[in-house]
Amino acid sequence: MDQTALFTMSYGVYVLGTKLEDKLNACIINTGMQVTSIPEQVSITVAKTNLTHDLVKTSGQFSLTTLSEVNALENVKVFGMQSGREVNKFENIPYKLDVLGNPYIEEGAVAVITGKVTQTVDVGTHTIFIADVVEAKDFKQNRPMTYAEYRALKAKNAPQVDPGHKVYECTVCHYEYNGEIPFEELPDDYICPICKQPKNVFKLK
Amino acid sequence: MDQTALFTMSYGVYVLGTKLEDKLNACIINTGMQVTSIPEQVSITVAKTNLTHDLVKTSGQFSLTTLSEVNALENVKVFGMQSGREVNKFENIPYKLDVLGNPYIEEGAVAVITGKVTQTVDVGTHTIFIADVVEAKDFKQNRPMTYAEYRALKAKNAPQVDPGHKVYECTVCHYEYNGEIPFEELPDDYICPICKQPKNVFKLK
Repeated sequence: MDQTALFTMSYGVYVLGTKLEDKLNACIINTGMQVTSIPEQVSITVAKTNLTHDLVKTSGQFSLTTLSEVNALENVKVFGMQSGREVNKFENIPYKLDVLGNPYIEEGAVAVITGKVTQTVDVGTHTIFIADVVEAKDFKQNRPMTYAEYRALKAKNAPQVDPGHKVYECTVCHYEYNGEIPFEELPDDYICPICKQPKNVFKLK
Repeated sequence: MDQTALFTMSYGVYVLGTKLEDKLNACIINTGMQVTSIPEQVSITVAKTNLTHDLVKTSGQFSLTTLSEVNALENVKVFGMQSGREVNKFENIPYKLDVLGNPYIEEGAVAVITGKVTQTVDVGTHTIFIADVVEAKDFKQNRPMTYAEYRALKAKNAPQVDPGHKVYECTVCHYEYNGEIPFEELPDDYICPICKQPKNVFKLK
């Protein structure tokens, strides 16, 4: 099986936010889509290892914000590269609350929709949440960024490294780890910021 | 609700093929995505009005071919703008069969995967099929086309029309009808080639 065949599918990049009691949290996903139009329903697919997964499962609601290339590296860093179990991701950035109280950002965003979960589908490592769209706002700014564009942007902005520097690629979602810290020294519980797979799915590129 | 907010989500463009007994058929969808990696599973969301929907539901298998911009207008025309109830879509074009016997094309394609349905989810007008990926081939040619790129390509190649010519837009998926036939003269059973909604969801742009 050519795993690269799966990388030819197109995705966007989204901030998935939710609120459970007083807890606000959000993560990055690339697996959001509209599934029906009458009525408007969307689906999101979220890794079970994500705190946001558990919060959405209990709260039954979320905001889904479409990201643009504007501020994308910073937005993915804030929402995708740290865990809400350890930090309050919204502590240092301006955000708003949607009609159900879910947090969302406007900087670097294109639009936000609010979903109310109607069905959950267990697909193993992930859950698919199907939701009615109860609100949708178009910020009339920026244009949507595809996941392919995000990857290209990230590669372009990667820190200058020695020619011998090793680049590790997530075999699951194609994410490239090419940071300053040698990959070998990353903690064993490092997970891919995009698809949340463990460190051992990364291979030397 | 700003419906345009929903148009900010990113999709690819795919040919969904299947085989049921001796019947080969295929349609165009933009709602394919990988949902898990261990094991590899994909989801496709298909309108119930589609013949391919019924065939996949019964056959439990499909090919999902990622299209590129190469030959895209022709491929979408062949597979999206006519019904397998009336024609054999594969009659005049070269195709191959995947490991389960599903038809797929290589011209203008980037890759093909073969799915075996494991779960179906009823979401009203559409069904979400979740499938194990049993085969995946990367043709090592072309690059994937996003749905936004397809729309731009189509607009660029639209026939020259009088300045007073009316362009109708599908309010569901943003597809623009701007063909040579005045819209009023289209048959009442015209459906959007992308999202399969009826003629009455089209609005003057």
